[in-house]
Amino acid sequence: MAADSLIICDVGPRDGLQNAEPILGPEIRAEYVNRLAASGLPRIEAVSFVNPARVPQMADASEVFAGIARRPATRYTALVPNRAGLERALRAGVREIAVFAASTETFSRKNINRSIDASLAEYRSVCADAARAGVRVRGYLSTAFGCPYEGHVAPDTVADATGRLLDLGVFEVAVSDTIGVAHPAQVQRVIDRLLRTVQGEQLALHFHDTRGTALANVLAGLGCGISTFDASAGGLGGCPFAPGAAGNLATDDLLYMLEGLGIDTGISLEAVSEASAFIAAHLDRPLPSRYAQARGATRPNTLE
Amino acid sequence: MAADSLIICDVGPRDGLQNAEPILGPEIRAEYVNRLAASGLPRIEAVSFVNPARVPQMADASEVFAGIARRPATRYTALVPNRAGLERALRAGVREIAVFAASTETFSRKNINRSIDASLAEYRSVCADAARAGVRVRGYLSTAFGCPYEGHVAPDTVADATGRLLDLGVFEVAVSDTIGVAHPAQVQRVIDRLLRTVQGEQLALHFHDTRGTALANVLAGLGCGISTFDASAGGLGGCPFAPGAAGNLATDDLLYMLEGLGIDTGISLEAVSEASAFIAAHLDRPLPSRYAQARGATRPNTLE
Repeated sequence: MAADSLIICDVGPRDGLQNAEPILGPEIRAEYVNRLAASGLPRIEAVSFVNPARVPQMADASEVFAGIARRPATRYTALVPNRAGLERALRAGVREIAVFAASTETFSRKNINRSIDASLAEYRSVCADAARAGVRVRGYLSTAFGCPYEGHVAPDTVADATGRLLDLGVFEVAVSDTIGVAHPAQVQRVIDRLLRTVQGEQLALHFHDTRGTALANVLAGLGCGISTFDASAGGLGGCPFAPGAAGNLATDDLLYMLEGLGIDTGISLEAVSEASAFIAAHLDRPLPSRYAQARGATRPNTLE
Repeated sequence: MAADSLIICDVGPRDGLQNAEPILGPEIRAEYVNRLAASGLPRIEAVSFVNPARVPQMADASEVFAGIARRPATRYTALVPNRAGLERALRAGVREIAVFAASTETFSRKNINRSIDASLAEYRSVCADAARAGVRVRGYLSTAFGCPYEGHVAPDTVADATGRLLDLGVFEVAVSDTIGVAHPAQVQRVIDRLLRTVQGEQLALHFHDTRGTALANVLAGLGCGISTFDASAGGLGGCPFAPGAAGNLATDDLLYMLEGLGIDTGISLEAVSEASAFIAAHLDRPLPSRYAQARGATRPNTLE
């Protein structure tokens, strides 16, 4: 239940904002990234170079990136869907990118309108170009714990897809619970299977707190020796059409638990909370993080 | 990470409703208890015989109890604050009661206007009377993981208070995180200390999900061999003045995780969700349970 060196990647500016309402301009998003970085976060997924016609929330990614006051201790990642996205990212000065593939064929086709094979073929070119530019590539593996179309996903399937991503040259695969259905025993099973063929350092875990299990899943992941976890300040990332519904695992909830576990991340929980309050104010809604909701509310209200 | 026989005590009708707005009448509360019992829950804290002038939400406890269609497989508990409450409970046909003591002196005085010693002296009489009537007594130990007034609570303090409650003759102590600050390492430390002097079967864990750690805490408790957990359907029990704030650990979130862990409780998650939806409709607000919020919402909304 401990990790020597734990890394949190805050994906709020990308995964959290990509379907947020209202759509925020590049100045606010850059300021959000800067506030997150000031907390001491070692990794932030700052932007996405996807088609702005399809994801207007992520428009003006180059302007966001230009507005980031880069800190030496923080790595700023950009999601890219293809070589055109990589070119835009490189022009913007991005030094680390992420690509995203699915564990399940149906999700791949519905989410990015490509088969898994076709997406990996594109990413092969992206990774080659990135390597030439000296840019590191992270790989997301979506629907690793369940698919909204295909249901259960076998650990062997996850291991196979993880291996294919690593073969492209990604330095790490973020094994992702896209729809928030994972539970701790499943996390242990999937990671146990993965560790038969890959190193723990090549894996990150990306949970959504849709059913409240995200922190318990982190505990299971820590128990398996995983030390990189994605989260978003305030739990930003819930569906805008379901107010209050949980999104990404909240960075603040995660930090609260890790501090209790005696795991020092070097990140200021207070500063993360403030960055979360900043973006919540711009979105004009409370964020789903339990910690954010409890902040300042310590009045007991029960008999026991 | 497994329990041979896991018991969930749903405290929603008492802990969940005791500060709810609007105040619900006894027919609705009895129907709520009956719906919870129909899910297969082995234990339900149904009512509280506290002063209705102080807690109007719990008024008419006898009428609620009279409206319960008792099922042989379910035990229905009533919270009682003193001998007068016990007399009312016995007249209502209650066969199991609960008393509540604090781990910390300041909380005891502020919550029930008595010192810990004075409260235990009263409970000694209550337990003696209950034993004569053949009624089992559960003991709650509040602020066992933190106090809103005194802050940190030492495991030795929790062990001492637990021992004093057991000495009164309670069959079990519900070690309670009243303000929802516990984290998994602390749970392990407190339970490890308790197991030096009491049996695991004499302990239950009662978590609030205020900072999102409740399920991770359950996982830690399971790892220590604890097999009785309190929860409330839908996570009912948040402060009515903080909309969306988490209350008790949600029974539905707990069941979702336990099912994933392969722990069979014999309780229908679907029926618990329906009981939760019933009471949410009467309270005219969504409940904080993540599972309840996610129910029916399986549309993916992210790229990974």
